[in-house]
Amino acid sequence: VTPRSDLQALVEAVTFAPGYTRSVGTKVHSVEAGSVTLTLDRTPELLQANGYFHGGVIAGLADHAAGGAVTTALPPGKFAVTICLQINFMSAANGQSLLARAKAVRVGSTIGVAHVDVTSLRDGAERLCATATVTLRVVELPAKLAPDRAAGAP
Amino acid sequence: VTPRSDLQALVEAVTFAPGYTRSVGTKVHSVEAGSVTLTLDRTPELLQANGYFHGGVIAGLADHAAGGAVTTALPPGKFAVTICLQINFMSAANGQSLLARAKAVRVGSTIGVAHVDVTSLRDGAERLCATATVTLRVVELPAKLAPDRAAGAP
Amino acid sequence: VTPRSDLQALVEAVTFAPGYTRSVGTKVHSVEAGSVTLTLDRTPELLQANGYFHGGVIAGLADHAAGGAVTTALPPGKFAVTICLQINFMSAANGQSLLARAKAVRVGSTIGVAHVDVTSLRDGAERLCATATVTLRVVELPAKLAPDRAAGAP
Amino acid sequence: VTPRSDLQALVEAVTFAPGYTRSVGTKVHSVEAGSVTLTLDRTPELLQANGYFHGGVIAGLADHAAGGAVTTALPPGKFAVTICLQINFMSAANGQSLLARAKAVRVGSTIGVAHVDVTSLRDGAERLCATATVTLRVVELPAKLAPDRAAGAP
Repeated sequence: VTPRSDLQALVEAVTFAPGYTRSVGTKVHSVEAGSVTLTLDRTPELLQANGYFHGGVIAGLADHAAGGAVTTALPPGKFAVTICLQINFMSAANGQSLLARAKAVRVGSTIGVAHVDVTSLRDGAERLCATATVTLRVVELPAKLAPDRAAGAP
Repeated sequence: VTPRSDLQALVEAVTFAPGYTRSVGTKVHSVEAGSVTLTLDRTPELLQANGYFHGGVIAGLADHAAGGAVTTALPPGKFAVTICLQINFMSAANGQSLLARAKAVRVGSTIGVAHVDVTSLRDGAERLCATATVTLRVVELPAKLAPDRAAGAP
Repeated sequence: VTPRSDLQALVEAVTFAPGYTRSVGTKVHSVEAGSVTLTLDRTPELLQANGYFHGGVIAGLADHAAGGAVTTALPPGKFAVTICLQINFMSAANGQSLLARAKAVRVGSTIGVAHVDVTSLRDGAERLCATATVTLRVVELPAKLAPDRAAGAP
Repeated sequence: VTPRSDLQALVEAVTFAPGYTRSVGTKVHSVEAGSVTLTLDRTPELLQANGYFHGGVIAGLADHAAGGAVTTALPPGKFAVTICLQINFMSAANGQSLLARAKAVRVGSTIGVAHVDVTSLRDGAERLCATATVTLRVVELPAKLAPDRAAGAP
């Protein structure tokens, strides 16, 4: 079993690598094997014309959380990449931040599935704004994300 | 029938309003009633750790194109907002830009559906990297997007 | 609030009306406002070549349960019809019966959403074989399903 | 390349094996590598309370056609099984028969994807009643469906 600190390090390595998730400000709230929670604070660059988080931003956060949930449930050296994503938008994402809780509901040797609840946090109250189901394929962990690098080993 | 130039103005007004679609650099390639094509150039902020466009960025582009395709097929004064989005990732989006072609396949008084093909353009060759089906709900056009403003009238 | 016995009567009226759900042998296990559980026993006509329940049969059961879950959460006189259905097949449905538990997760005036877990029951043990998310549209209750008829009133 | 007659024989073997697709009366209209069209005539056992084809029946036909489309695009000895299915219901399936046209849009070594259009045929006119996207996993062809048996060889 991979130690929880290594799982957290792996999710953070992927999330904070230069690119989209880092540039929008994704934070890693918590990580356990099969379960990842991410948050994202509201900034003007993430909104629609109506002032709510854009659907693509919500989908991206859900996708990334799902990838983490399934990857952390896989044996070391394996990685999950999204095949398909289905997301329902339930209510306006009009809060100060988003919270995506992903949970792996199936983890096989080739396919994984995660469910994600995305809430919008406004004045301390959470409201469900989207739910997603993400189906992923299991591949080899890219070399640049190998545990020793991810964990910051020399 | 709404003139095509007004449809283009409406899609541009939504796309270029301050927020996500503008900040990532979305361009409006072409607009017809029921059919919208958007493009998005590669920048480091839009990529995953592996150097490809992030799934959330692809989903966001598809979502936005679908909204445009259905909205432009609606009577004036109506607007389409996404209820649910389903997207399949087909191949690595490793090109210099993305191209999302959305087409309304059903337009009713309360519900619309659009199909979207997203290609990745690399060295002049297009490759299908995702297909999406987006289901939308018909609402009143938000006042700030009303035709006279959208068309730039005083 | 509609009495629970009326909700059960309504779901049974729809399920046992002549047609598909009746002909395959769908049973109504339990009904509450926003929550419906159906079961379906294995018969040769419901299987694939490999001896498991066919995906279409699983999808049909999930769809019907979702319709019940959302309809029973609506005000009297309203009815939910499916706009789109997304289902993930998790494991072989190789049991003696299927059990579909649907729960409404969003109920609005025009759109409802239900999540459904489908398990396969084999030798007393339940195993998750599919999860579905169903998006529905709210319409007027068809006259033939009006409460007095559904409840068996003369 | 597998001869077209063998592909047709394979799809027919799966469709006409004892079980769901045979019992509802599924017909194999045409088969090419990556492309399968099935039809299904209206019978009382396939309908909803409102007299239209049940959503589960439509989903099952789409699923089966998609499996055929991807399987016939695979190398001999491989078979495609559904991971997830997404279907949008567009209009009432109120015709005398259904027609499902599936086309493989991606065929990889482990994953395939097919798009399916389902039309309802009424008095000679076809109307689009559903579109589906089906994602499948590539597995070994079950022994009982091996080409020599499928083709009726001794």
